[in-house]
Amino acid sequence: MKGYAMLGIEKTGWIEKNRPKCGGMDAIVRPIAVSPCSSDIHTVYAGALGERHNLILGHEAIGEVVETGNLVRDFSVGDRVIVPAITPDWNSAEAQDGYSMHSKGMLSGWKFSNHKDGVFAEFFHVNDADGNLAHLPVGIDSASAVMLADMVPTGFHGVELAQVKFGDNVCVIGIGPVGLMAVVGAKLRGAADIFAVGSRPECVRVAKELGATQIINYKDGDIAKQILELTNGKGVDKVIIAGGDNDTFAQAVTMLKPGGIIGNVNYLGEGTTIRIPRSEWGCGMGHKTIAGGLMPGGRRRMERLASMIVAGRIDPGILLTHRFQGMEYIEEALELMREKPSELIKPVVIF
Amino acid sequence: MKGYAMLGIEKTGWIEKNRPKCGGMDAIVRPIAVSPCSSDIHTVYAGALGERHNLILGHEAIGEVVETGNLVRDFSVGDRVIVPAITPDWNSAEAQDGYSMHSKGMLSGWKFSNHKDGVFAEFFHVNDADGNLAHLPVGIDSASAVMLADMVPTGFHGVELAQVKFGDNVCVIGIGPVGLMAVVGAKLRGAADIFAVGSRPECVRVAKELGATQIINYKDGDIAKQILELTNGKGVDKVIIAGGDNDTFAQAVTMLKPGGIIGNVNYLGEGTTIRIPRSEWGCGMGHKTIAGGLMPGGRRRMERLASMIVAGRIDPGILLTHRFQGMEYIEEALELMREKPSELIKPVVIF
Amino acid sequence: MKGYAMLGIEKTGWIEKNRPKCGGMDAIVRPIAVSPCSSDIHTVYAGALGERHNLILGHEAIGEVVETGNLVRDFSVGDRVIVPAITPDWNSAEAQDGYSMHSKGMLSGWKFSNHKDGVFAEFFHVNDADGNLAHLPVGIDSASAVMLADMVPTGFHGVELAQVKFGDNVCVIGIGPVGLMAVVGAKLRGAADIFAVGSRPECVRVAKELGATQIINYKDGDIAKQILELTNGKGVDKVIIAGGDNDTFAQAVTMLKPGGIIGNVNYLGEGTTIRIPRSEWGCGMGHKTIAGGLMPGGRRRMERLASMIVAGRIDPGILLTHRFQGMEYIEEALELMREKPSELIKPVVIF
Amino acid sequence: MKGYAMLGIEKTGWIEKNRPKCGGMDAIVRPIAVSPCSSDIHTVYAGALGERHNLILGHEAIGEVVETGNLVRDFSVGDRVIVPAITPDWNSAEAQDGYSMHSKGMLSGWKFSNHKDGVFAEFFHVNDADGNLAHLPVGIDSASAVMLADMVPTGFHGVELAQVKFGDNVCVIGIGPVGLMAVVGAKLRGAADIFAVGSRPECVRVAKELGATQIINYKDGDIAKQILELTNGKGVDKVIIAGGDNDTFAQAVTMLKPGGIIGNVNYLGEGTTIRIPRSEWGCGMGHKTIAGGLMPGGRRRMERLASMIVAGRIDPGILLTHRFQGMEYIEEALELMREKPSELIKPVVIF
Repeated sequence: MKGYAMLGIEKTGWIEKNRPKCGGMDAIVRPIAVSPCSSDIHTVYAGALGERHNLILGHEAIGEVVETGNLVRDFSVGDRVIVPAITPDWNSAEAQDGYSMHSKGMLSGWKFSNHKDGVFAEFFHVNDADGNLAHLPVGIDSASAVMLADMVPTGFHGVELAQVKFGDNVCVIGIGPVGLMAVVGAKLRGAADIFAVGSRPECVRVAKELGATQIINYKDGDIAKQILELTNGKGVDKVIIAGGDNDTFAQAVTMLKPGGIIGNVNYLGEGTTIRIPRSEWGCGMGHKTIAGGLMPGGRRRMERLASMIVAGRIDPGILLTHRFQGMEYIEEALELMREKPSELIKPVVIF
Repeated sequence: MKGYAMLGIEKTGWIEKNRPKCGGMDAIVRPIAVSPCSSDIHTVYAGALGERHNLILGHEAIGEVVETGNLVRDFSVGDRVIVPAITPDWNSAEAQDGYSMHSKGMLSGWKFSNHKDGVFAEFFHVNDADGNLAHLPVGIDSASAVMLADMVPTGFHGVELAQVKFGDNVCVIGIGPVGLMAVVGAKLRGAADIFAVGSRPECVRVAKELGATQIINYKDGDIAKQILELTNGKGVDKVIIAGGDNDTFAQAVTMLKPGGIIGNVNYLGEGTTIRIPRSEWGCGMGHKTIAGGLMPGGRRRMERLASMIVAGRIDPGILLTHRFQGMEYIEEALELMREKPSELIKPVVIF
Repeated sequence: MKGYAMLGIEKTGWIEKNRPKCGGMDAIVRPIAVSPCSSDIHTVYAGALGERHNLILGHEAIGEVVETGNLVRDFSVGDRVIVPAITPDWNSAEAQDGYSMHSKGMLSGWKFSNHKDGVFAEFFHVNDADGNLAHLPVGIDSASAVMLADMVPTGFHGVELAQVKFGDNVCVIGIGPVGLMAVVGAKLRGAADIFAVGSRPECVRVAKELGATQIINYKDGDIAKQILELTNGKGVDKVIIAGGDNDTFAQAVTMLKPGGIIGNVNYLGEGTTIRIPRSEWGCGMGHKTIAGGLMPGGRRRMERLASMIVAGRIDPGILLTHRFQGMEYIEEALELMREKPSELIKPVVIF
Repeated sequence: MKGYAMLGIEKTGWIEKNRPKCGGMDAIVRPIAVSPCSSDIHTVYAGALGERHNLILGHEAIGEVVETGNLVRDFSVGDRVIVPAITPDWNSAEAQDGYSMHSKGMLSGWKFSNHKDGVFAEFFHVNDADGNLAHLPVGIDSASAVMLADMVPTGFHGVELAQVKFGDNVCVIGIGPVGLMAVVGAKLRGAADIFAVGSRPECVRVAKELGATQIINYKDGDIAKQILELTNGKGVDKVIIAGGDNDTFAQAVTMLKPGGIIGNVNYLGEGTTIRIPRSEWGCGMGHKTIAGGLMPGGRRRMERLASMIVAGRIDPGILLTHRFQGMEYIEEALELMREKPSELIKPVVIF
């Protein structure tokens, strides 16, 4: 079969591979719609996961089941399914402790385009089909549904980590597709003011539409200082980090109230150290909690989010600024994520 | 001063009383807008709190400060304030344990028209002004803001007790003003489907507008059975009880998934016993948690909710079907709450 | 193979059955030590689970692996293992939602002697061996370790449900083996006073040894009244129910402070209704939360508890008042659980 | 009145001041027993709180009430009381949000020897007596009870922040008096293995007695590496930081499992930055939560902890290696905290 792969650091291209084998609990899926992710760019161009050879990229997909293992009960050939980016080993110690995304090792619930071939191929393999696939509800657009694989659950997880409550003032740093979904999630957890930090015009426009009450542009000065001014020196109750870099944490700590929480879902791909300012962190005693985590995946998570689309609570299709028809456009779509033209939020490739 | 009082069980009328005295931490407030509550009806006509003589009624008000104690720092004469129905003793053991509404005794954070005269008077007394009053933000309509005193925080507390999460299916039982705010709150915590149980046409109309995905009418049969049918026998993740009676709990337990939570904010005014069906409750082992509690009050709660109005997240003015101008209309407004005509949700009286 | 079975309601006896088949993820285990449980008595004599024919009893065991499925990675023939009473389907929707014990249906994580043959046999079947078995640490006595299957995790779950905190006053109702482990668990979560309700002398003696500060005997009058007197009318912060019947909940609600929690782990085998007293429950608004749930099982839970034995934190061997050598004594041991002689806490049968 | 004060950075001495005035809600207390704290040393010699002139030191005391304000209800002249180091403003926004220790500003619940004169004086002032004092139970030794002011609640708060659960493996870094109380607290929340990091022989001896299962000495190499070796590379579930410096966090993150929590209660007095290693922190996605906070104070907290002494759950007197009789020994006791001789854990001065 054909697949679009990382050939090595900074190199990508089409390759031929054998169609993956299906274990007893697994499924083989044919993609219907996929989307490239900034992580694919990190993986290839920053070598964030280290060297990889001929690893098929991609971890966001909607697909059709073409084969199932003999122990699979709930899915059959022909079923249209949502495939989460994170597909845990549900019986692992970590999952039993509540951290399925780290099953069998930190971040190891993230398998596609990391520990095994991803979804940019004619076929891909899904471990534990009953635990990790979800039926695509009738009437949901496949292209929109691809956003359930990673963008929606990651953005929402920032909100969960930050434990947003009724009437919280929230700052969302970064308004790419994940940050925009964090804006939606914060609104959907009862935030009052949502300060969204970003500058690209299309993202700013959508952030406002989705519920941001104020846009903060780093070009107008230190964002922590801006937030403190807007809040009479009090700061915000919660910060969700969905962009920026290691230095963003110092700003987040500075703009946060005592008792506040930082929920990070930004993948920190470079550098050795995140620096927390001692004094602003209350000399270690300010109750400014710093949390960061990979999104929870799996079937039930997908079903929950899909039901929110069906009920009309969210419409992640708003992220899709570019739609391509045909597997061959994966390269172009990926290139878009690398270049980030001003009008881009997220591309999708429909097979 | 003049006040509208419970003269005794089943008797109300205007009385004359001395203006309340202001302690060191307290404030005296003149009402600007007030609203009668079903609890006032329970208090008077069901004798729910026991016999009371010449107790001024009312616990929902927006007002203007006319006097402050010498220890009050943050409020001055002339300030326009939101007055929560629940005004805790913030330094009590119960408040320190996280249950301020039960400060110094179960439900004893509820003082107005219960342990002391209420707000249906020319003046009323507020204990711990700094801890219990909130400044009314400029630009909020006073009549809408009265809904922050009880309707919004009580409805939202049902949602908090039920711990609604992203993608939960929720049943809200009762869609009077509190239940309608529970619908809003459930939507604002990320619920997918919201099944709203009620029958009065105006409430049904507003419930749909506020986010209910399905209306359940008890006249169409047992509501638990209806819910189970609509959910393929699985039931809902959470139930919020904002109406009904002691028997409602049996239905709520029946329609609830294992691992689910019932959040009750309905004041159970009559009968001796709530009955939980043993088998549907998993023989005691089904993890169907039954929680019920008085709303949290106090200043910070009011500030949080007011900021949600300012940010455009909620508009509790939608509840106000009847507006009266003049203190003398309190009687008529209260009578409306007793009769509950079909077009009523909530009346407000503007002084 | 031979097994001791429920032949029908009120009838037990030895039967012959085929050795169970081993699926791909499963294991077949030979018991080394087993213990009968009050639930076995409920199942047989109260028909609590309904009619069952020739169902092998028993769900508490330590054993040796004699066969494993081809997908099992972490266990091999000859391994000595702890077998939890509850063996969930870890990839189920319920487990993904945090309620593994209800995987695929309320209480359905409880399979042994309920949905399939139990452990009172020459061999028994364990679903998802990697997810549900735990290696028995070297140096732990097998007989003591049998208590990890059900008694310890159930008693501790009562404490978890009640969310015992530093300095809580706790009442443990029922001091059979589960209640005694709840006393241990409450002490190990930082309880101050532990009021233990019971009367059998051996249980009373052990309860005191394990950390109960006061014994309450229902023969001395209403236990709620006794507790209220001992606490100056304030009541306790938490109640753990590990005994009694449906009526025990009314007492528990009465003795509980507002903001308190009842954690029930008692299997309620009879009657139709649990009655909650309206007024003592704060008319539905007292924040007296009523929680009840089946113990969490699975491998990681067993590993956690076993490590507590290894670290010297708990010694569940204290429960073992009767030790039998030989499978043939299962009948006698079960009979003991039915008769509950005064010197009994828990018997164990070593094969 | 006489008091022992910080005269300026690096200078201490006896001074004369007026006896403090008592506000309406306040009390004036005469010390019965006090203890110097490492924070006093930080304050004076590291200038950790900035320059202070003639500020009376000390924040750990048991005392006798000598005057009360007219609004105080529960305390009278002559009452023996526990005085927590942290005395919040209970009606503040922060307290209502659950963070009383930050009432009116980060760390501002810490008033003694920070924002106002401390307890090393003939008399000292307590704000909100009803909310912040606790009656000393009869039969508790005053010297032991002084440990309730700061050492016990701070150590225990580390455990609370780390959310220690049944069967957690925990590392406690630093086994001075706070760290030792963290060991006690971790054991009292159900920890299995407790790895205690320290080297001073007396502290090591007491750590073992209190429940540490293994002592880690930084002189034997990197402590994170030692912990990883002892846990087969898995790391610990939780880390409590009660000693060390800014660099300790990097070790804590390294030794922590994904899903783990660091609970810091160490006052970080110097340096500008805490450094978190990006890769060991899971590139921001490892769910290794970093929490740190000032202890919760106030009356109810003191009552809870005192009841644990009364019930025999804790005996903080074990920390008292040096007892002095007479106020004049404050200087010598403070000097001990500065020099930290090998046999010292904590001194107490009885008036």
